[in-house]
Amino acid sequence: MAKFDTISFLSDYGHVDEFVGVVHSVIRQIAPEVRVIDVTHEVAPFDVRGGALTLARSAQYLAPGVVLAVVDPGVGSSRRAIIVEVGDGESYLVGPDNGLLAPAVAMVGGATRAVSIENEDYLFGAPGPTFAGRDVFAPVAAHLCNGVEPTEFGPEVDPFSLMPATMPLTREEDGAIVAEVLWTDSFGNLQLNVDPEQIEAFGQHVELRFDGRTRTGVRHRTYSEIPTGVVGLVVDSYGLLSIAIDRSSASEELSLGTGDEVVLATDAGNAAKQRVITPVTLKEKP
Amino acid sequence: MAKFDTISFLSDYGHVDEFVGVVHSVIRQIAPEVRVIDVTHEVAPFDVRGGALTLARSAQYLAPGVVLAVVDPGVGSSRRAIIVEVGDGESYLVGPDNGLLAPAVAMVGGATRAVSIENEDYLFGAPGPTFAGRDVFAPVAAHLCNGVEPTEFGPEVDPFSLMPATMPLTREEDGAIVAEVLWTDSFGNLQLNVDPEQIEAFGQHVELRFDGRTRTGVRHRTYSEIPTGVVGLVVDSYGLLSIAIDRSSASEELSLGTGDEVVLATDAGNAAKQRVITPVTLKEKP
Amino acid sequence: MAKFDTISFLSDYGHVDEFVGVVHSVIRQIAPEVRVIDVTHEVAPFDVRGGALTLARSAQYLAPGVVLAVVDPGVGSSRRAIIVEVGDGESYLVGPDNGLLAPAVAMVGGATRAVSIENEDYLFGAPGPTFAGRDVFAPVAAHLCNGVEPTEFGPEVDPFSLMPATMPLTREEDGAIVAEVLWTDSFGNLQLNVDPEQIEAFGQHVELRFDGRTRTGVRHRTYSEIPTGVVGLVVDSYGLLSIAIDRSSASEELSLGTGDEVVLATDAGNAAKQRVITPVTLKEKP
Repeated sequence: MAKFDTISFLSDYGHVDEFVGVVHSVIRQIAPEVRVIDVTHEVAPFDVRGGALTLARSAQYLAPGVVLAVVDPGVGSSRRAIIVEVGDGESYLVGPDNGLLAPAVAMVGGATRAVSIENEDYLFGAPGPTFAGRDVFAPVAAHLCNGVEPTEFGPEVDPFSLMPATMPLTREEDGAIVAEVLWTDSFGNLQLNVDPEQIEAFGQHVELRFDGRTRTGVRHRTYSEIPTGVVGLVVDSYGLLSIAIDRSSASEELSLGTGDEVVLATDAGNAAKQRVITPVTLKEKP
Repeated sequence: MAKFDTISFLSDYGHVDEFVGVVHSVIRQIAPEVRVIDVTHEVAPFDVRGGALTLARSAQYLAPGVVLAVVDPGVGSSRRAIIVEVGDGESYLVGPDNGLLAPAVAMVGGATRAVSIENEDYLFGAPGPTFAGRDVFAPVAAHLCNGVEPTEFGPEVDPFSLMPATMPLTREEDGAIVAEVLWTDSFGNLQLNVDPEQIEAFGQHVELRFDGRTRTGVRHRTYSEIPTGVVGLVVDSYGLLSIAIDRSSASEELSLGTGDEVVLATDAGNAAKQRVITPVTLKEKP
Repeated sequence: MAKFDTISFLSDYGHVDEFVGVVHSVIRQIAPEVRVIDVTHEVAPFDVRGGALTLARSAQYLAPGVVLAVVDPGVGSSRRAIIVEVGDGESYLVGPDNGLLAPAVAMVGGATRAVSIENEDYLFGAPGPTFAGRDVFAPVAAHLCNGVEPTEFGPEVDPFSLMPATMPLTREEDGAIVAEVLWTDSFGNLQLNVDPEQIEAFGQHVELRFDGRTRTGVRHRTYSEIPTGVVGLVVDSYGLLSIAIDRSSASEELSLGTGDEVVLATDAGNAAKQRVITPVTLKEKP
């Protein structure tokens, strides 16, 4: 019986070429009972950081078993191919040692062991050395499901020697928070690297500064509560602060995207407006 | 043993983000034996009508079991989350109560029961309330497969209280049929909301008027029978009339798309041409 | 028990419409235990040659069983629907007889038998004759998995009567090789119809002529060994010569794509430069 019955597979292969299908086929022949779940294959080509963030967002929802992740601009170079054990063997992540796996590993409690893949007995001989997903990572993932011991694939390496992720942190400047757009989802919502607690003191209206412009973001519980014409600030389904516009793309409307800087500050103007009751004198029109 | 072993899954999640993969993962962990068939996830964002039509076209071909459909611009609002029973329990459709499920339900004989999803015991607790596919609909679909009774998820509601679909009907004007493009498929064929019987009396040549232009559509049995340069009218694989051009995109060549109006009428000019035999005098060139 | 448990499925259906999902659903209902592996569905619409090359690249990696391939501009015409047996029944390929299957069949040793699909008992009755994937090919593929004899579906035909593939061959001209780009992958690498042995005599530097321009291609073992700014020549993972630029799209940077002609020749200039040691006199700057 198989040790694991699920492989969760993420890559930058896209769907136009046959890469994803061929990897499924390789797994099917080594470990026929295993189900392969495609997390996504539309990570931008070579975008290791984007792939790492996607995997980290998914990590806690994936079925226990093997994660196969391939965004690998350094294929064929001296970068290591690795297996990372988490939860003392509850799951394994297989991929290149370039930071792609690091945030997901951190999300699920850190590495309990790591192995450098070097044993060619388990790999596919291939005419060229450029399709590691098919020839290296897929066979290893499938054999792991079949119960082959991780150390069969190569020597253990110190988990601390693995390439770390470089995740952007926020910083404070004059009471404001300098943040960054981590992710633009397909609906155009802009996820920030900001925990909602960080802006608790700012109240419902938050000043957003980006690209020389200033807008007011209004905190709401859900997308559909954001009134028309308003830039909303919503805690997204991953627990992070997100800039959103109801039934529209915040990314397009604000010309903002992944990697852009956004400064969040107390919205002094709006706060004032809310406190002051302006006396109004009704006059006849002149 | 599972009650159902297939979930047919449609959404507007796209393939760039990890949404589809995460929903598969959630189902995998609740109902491991269930196979998830992806109908499509490229419904345009928030396009409830387009999703509803896609689901209706697919409905009669789907495996009995559970249909999971999520195009949900009102997520987090007061719109209900529902389970619709069809065929006295032969299948269940799970999704938002916004008209998305209605045409498919009608296609397979109507609702025999409906339930409003309200019991939080079966839902995923999540940091934000915005990913109902993962946190509400997927768990419910998986538990239904496992044999949990629909009424476990909430109170029965009157099927007549469900949001109906708003499907465009044709109308007659001066003997012509005012129709609408329901769907532009990926080959550029334009499906109309017209039953072929409606234009039986028009003969092989049909006048098409759209966007101030007039073209002649010629009825053919298959795409490949349409001669080069001719706008064809074909009964498509769903039984509806479709405007097509052989090995080319009718949508691009005619600048026509989903939602556009097309008037079909007797092609008087062409009909005349077919009846009249023009006398021809052969002359030497001057 | 099923005779085959895997169908490998390739088409030009794309992922926007429900076509792929409906074909999966049809198979699921005829042969519930069969796993369907999607090779790709993003073959360009009607691009029989592109689909044929994709299938040929994949062929040796696919699980034994049934291959279902549909790129079918002639649907509804007199083109035959066929079953091609390979390896004396080890696998079957099902699709239109338009050259789509031919290169893959050749890759795995040629046809041992062929059948023309004509028996309507195994097909889906449908309102229109235009969706052969759903109504003809998918049911046949599923029934083949269930152990139905190929000849149940129609008469045997001479494998030599099948439409052959038209694959471009290189030719020699004045010692140079006139080649063609077979495939541009999603990373922008340009696969040529050139076996690396054909250019063995040219050395490490190869002159590339295309579209009136001349560039030097430098042979490297992997993408990541190609220095910045250099056009690399790499043996790709299918054993063919490929033009590549590290972490960038060779297709975009050179404005070259599938079907374009590329002439490879000895790079006389570079070869000379490598042999001559230019005497250098160090001088003070004037």
